[in-house]
Amino acid sequence: MTDTYEPPKVWTWEPGNGGQFANINRPIAGATHDKDLPVGKHPFQLYSLATPNGVKVTVLFEELLEAGHDAEYDAWLIRINEGDQFGSGFVGANPNSKIPALMDHSGDAPQRVFESAAIMLHLAEKFGAFIPQGADRTEMMSWLFWQMGSAPYLGGGFGHFYAYAPEKWEYPINRFAMEAKRQLDVLDRHLAENEWMAGSYSIADMAIWAWYGQLVLGRLYSAAEFLDVESYTHVMRWARAIDARPAVQRGRMVNRAFGEPELQLHERHDASDFETKTQDKIGDS
Amino acid sequence: MTDTYEPPKVWTWEPGNGGQFANINRPIAGATHDKDLPVGKHPFQLYSLATPNGVKVTVLFEELLEAGHDAEYDAWLIRINEGDQFGSGFVGANPNSKIPALMDHSGDAPQRVFESAAIMLHLAEKFGAFIPQGADRTEMMSWLFWQMGSAPYLGGGFGHFYAYAPEKWEYPINRFAMEAKRQLDVLDRHLAENEWMAGSYSIADMAIWAWYGQLVLGRLYSAAEFLDVESYTHVMRWARAIDARPAVQRGRMVNRAFGEPELQLHERHDASDFETKTQDKIGDS
Repeated sequence: MTDTYEPPKVWTWEPGNGGQFANINRPIAGATHDKDLPVGKHPFQLYSLATPNGVKVTVLFEELLEAGHDAEYDAWLIRINEGDQFGSGFVGANPNSKIPALMDHSGDAPQRVFESAAIMLHLAEKFGAFIPQGADRTEMMSWLFWQMGSAPYLGGGFGHFYAYAPEKWEYPINRFAMEAKRQLDVLDRHLAENEWMAGSYSIADMAIWAWYGQLVLGRLYSAAEFLDVESYTHVMRWARAIDARPAVQRGRMVNRAFGEPELQLHERHDASDFETKTQDKIGDS
Repeated sequence: MTDTYEPPKVWTWEPGNGGQFANINRPIAGATHDKDLPVGKHPFQLYSLATPNGVKVTVLFEELLEAGHDAEYDAWLIRINEGDQFGSGFVGANPNSKIPALMDHSGDAPQRVFESAAIMLHLAEKFGAFIPQGADRTEMMSWLFWQMGSAPYLGGGFGHFYAYAPEKWEYPINRFAMEAKRQLDVLDRHLAENEWMAGSYSIADMAIWAWYGQLVLGRLYSAAEFLDVESYTHVMRWARAIDARPAVQRGRMVNRAFGEPELQLHERHDASDFETKTQDKIGDS
């Protein structure tokens, strides 16, 4: 990439040219191998990994359970670095081969739901929870879609070029750092005048927190100093308030297969799994 | 960008470093100047430009009117290259300073709605149109969110580095061309087995058409040959079917201030504006 080049008339694939994650990026869709998805005992079957997009849904499940809703779920680990998302079962649940994917078995026939915010909206509407009413609902929906359209610049843009690309190049880092900071400032100005994104704590807060909250909390891309996240004081106040919620702390652990070992609950099938995890930790020490 | 560099500890803004559109990209949000938005006679006031995100909403308005719904609207031009999106009135309607923004005056109090898909969903739910029922609704929502989370890789990624960046660099063009082609293949496989994205013609079709339909029709980034769009035969079939709809042809014209002069209807306040536009054309010839 270091030199300007003349693009060919027709682009062709040269496998392997993509930095970290090069092995899981492809120019074609579809399954690479036959593999059914496991199915547990609960109405909701989640296939995911605790990236920001994955955590959105496990946080919501744990918030629903905390609030007393009958939202019991099985959470199965999808190891994207090993290509689990290209198995035929997963592709059937999400033809886009990205985590998270949900199979909802609570109705007459199993229903696939994919894209993290679509899953959140599906569950929140089903239980009538974490969606405000009236004008606040409209405002909440604007922010929910804002998150989906904005985070690719943070993750696929800034995060890729700052943390994962094979070398550090100034132009794309500048381009996407500027946009990430603009997005943080959009949030900061809004949260200066609002406790939550729209009326009350909602799926928009959870979705935005998963990316921008965790960014200011220093959990993404080792970029806290580079982006001067401390200067977004209202985002920080809001991020810490969400982070302190017990359901959020549990949601962060589910399908985690990287980072701090004590936070890793690879699969979740029952509320007691969190206690077992704690006991494991005690047993290990 | 041509050399690898050592990022500074803290990123700082150097205005002007951003290729085409550098003058409208900033690391901060908020208004740059005081300017109220104009308000016309209809319940719906749209502030937009006929980019793919803008066209989504004008196509939906025209489809609603074509289907007999009382969806009359005023469409006002926002010239993003002149910074209209940073006026105080626009920022009040959309704190993210991106087109399109809608002010809905049909209720007790004016209601802002921003993000193109949020506007589409707001209107489609209000009129009970272009959203399928039951399982198809869930599938439609997955694809609507898919469009919002995927198109940034096509527009802010591929389009930027292939068409707008100051130079052509191989790594980002490869990265985002591969993802654009993967997304086209996701659609192609789905449309091989489905006439529409979910059940019947819906807002998911309109939203996806605005980006991927127009891409295969050769209207974005002069990239049709580079991405070999002709090979996505099912996307092409579907794109042409949508493109032939009279409402779509009208929707493409609204708030257009670039490209073919005969397609440019800068503002739309009445159905007769399209006829006037035709008369203008005849008068001009």
